[in-house]
Amino acid sequence: MAKSPEQEHPVKAFGWAARDSSGHLSPFDFSRRTTGENDVTFKVQYCGICHSDLHNIRNEWGGADYPMVPGHEILGVVTEVGNKVTKFKVGDKVGVGAIIGACRSCESCAQSLENYCPSMILTYNTKDREGSTTYGGYSDIMVTDEHYAVAIPDNLPLDGAAPLLCAGITVYSPLKNYGLDRPGLHVGVVGLGGLGHVAVKFAKAMGLKSAMGTVDIIIDTVSAVHALLPLVELLRSRGKLIMVGAPQRPLELPIMPLLFGGKIVAGSCAGGLTELQEMINFASEHNITSDIEVIPMDYVNTAMERLAKGDVRYRFVIDIKNTLKPAA
Amino acid sequence: MAKSPEQEHPVKAFGWAARDSSGHLSPFDFSRRTTGENDVTFKVQYCGICHSDLHNIRNEWGGADYPMVPGHEILGVVTEVGNKVTKFKVGDKVGVGAIIGACRSCESCAQSLENYCPSMILTYNTKDREGSTTYGGYSDIMVTDEHYAVAIPDNLPLDGAAPLLCAGITVYSPLKNYGLDRPGLHVGVVGLGGLGHVAVKFAKAMGLKSAMGTVDIIIDTVSAVHALLPLVELLRSRGKLIMVGAPQRPLELPIMPLLFGGKIVAGSCAGGLTELQEMINFASEHNITSDIEVIPMDYVNTAMERLAKGDVRYRFVIDIKNTLKPAA
Repeated sequence: MAKSPEQEHPVKAFGWAARDSSGHLSPFDFSRRTTGENDVTFKVQYCGICHSDLHNIRNEWGGADYPMVPGHEILGVVTEVGNKVTKFKVGDKVGVGAIIGACRSCESCAQSLENYCPSMILTYNTKDREGSTTYGGYSDIMVTDEHYAVAIPDNLPLDGAAPLLCAGITVYSPLKNYGLDRPGLHVGVVGLGGLGHVAVKFAKAMGLKSAMGTVDIIIDTVSAVHALLPLVELLRSRGKLIMVGAPQRPLELPIMPLLFGGKIVAGSCAGGLTELQEMINFASEHNITSDIEVIPMDYVNTAMERLAKGDVRYRFVIDIKNTLKPAA
Repeated sequence: MAKSPEQEHPVKAFGWAARDSSGHLSPFDFSRRTTGENDVTFKVQYCGICHSDLHNIRNEWGGADYPMVPGHEILGVVTEVGNKVTKFKVGDKVGVGAIIGACRSCESCAQSLENYCPSMILTYNTKDREGSTTYGGYSDIMVTDEHYAVAIPDNLPLDGAAPLLCAGITVYSPLKNYGLDRPGLHVGVVGLGGLGHVAVKFAKAMGLKSAMGTVDIIIDTVSAVHALLPLVELLRSRGKLIMVGAPQRPLELPIMPLLFGGKIVAGSCAGGLTELQEMINFASEHNITSDIEVIPMDYVNTAMERLAKGDVRYRFVIDIKNTLKPAA
């Protein structure tokens, strides 16, 4: 007989979960595994609210597995490490993004592009190798293989850095992988939300120009259905339109303007672990954080309603450390 | 006062032209410039019928300038060279594709990607630097700056090689530029027409596999409106769907499958002059030609009707040498 979430593992944990597709979040007792030899366990301090959390708790993308504890922009402080852990020690500041598992043997993993591993395990709403449901960062503690955690340099504030773990890497990865980290190139950013505003900061720190005209790359962060033709036309020959937002319906793609300019429309999803650490270090060097509104845990349902209306500049971050309280 | 096509230049020329958007082709007297110091003049032997010829003579893409002499898959024999010409001599076999001019100074030209030069001059239906209309290969003679002509190795039959100048380079270029010329990768080809059947031959000669499944690249040659989702789903992670056909209406692009696989949809249009010669040499080494149906000049209107219905395996080539006769 399957054990309850509370009894499944030895370590008591507490968070907020959605129970059904209403997406309403409420307190939830569950459990986490003990620290394995390659694991780090950490106390969650802050967790960003990604728009995908909203899609997932409402099952708008399908595949919701309730109860669901969302959250994949997680920052915390290490409380215990396994005896084979080399990257972290107790007291270190640590971040976890969207991925907490991958096969480590496929072609994507060999290039540290775990985000394209066909067997990747997401930080929440997925089954891990043992068949347990993964629970995300709207919770008091996390445990993960150290490979999927990154070190957070001291100068980054934990609250403003939290959204870097998903929003940050999602825009940094295509800028890097499409060779745009060269000063002087022209970049466009479509959608100035949680992702877009960080894209502008990274692009500026890379020495890119965000003027309109003959644009080398456009990062399109818009999740709503929108027209691609005006964006394709902004690109110079062989320019690249990188989609990182996830509209649910197909967009209309004009083919002739793509052909005659040899232009590219590409999807990009989060980033691998090597570039995740690289992005954090780059953000640290250039003092890049997300512009945030810090909220208490019990404001989360209101925050979700505001997020659905686009009423946030530019990211909600939950103050887990000070406001997540177990039920009496 | 503008001179008539027949009087504009010193050298008498003769071909078949469309006069209006009916696309009906009929005999046409015009003229060509004398051989400039960097020019080669050649007698046309064969000219392939590209599907874009059909679109253009009927003004389906807009911008038709009548009378229009189509044809940009042109093979001939050099009859005269300018005193600065280094690549060709009288009697050489020579090919000209879609491009007969470019700025030679932009970033694209610097990489011999003249096909993406913003100032490129097309082989027909364009104004050249002097403001004269360009006339294509459904004609007895051609003259071009030697930069835009390629040498045709002796082992290639002129008729079967003609379609390489457009259909060939159009599929060769993306296979090369997207790094697919490595044995063992998996390639898919959508649309087994004039372009698609040559794509299969090139891919085979490059040691690629055309099995279905986890596909590294798909060359989509289809000019009709069609579904992209099944193609995107065939791609492996970071696989590439290269559009070389030109549907007139936008296609529906599913965004989520692009994102989660980090996949690319790109347009590609013809190829640059360096790769045009490289493609011809590759075709020569591997004995790749187009499967063709050779037709006489006066069959061209029937051929266009058959082409519109897809009734050709796989390319019509006009026997200019033996069948283009000046009006009595």
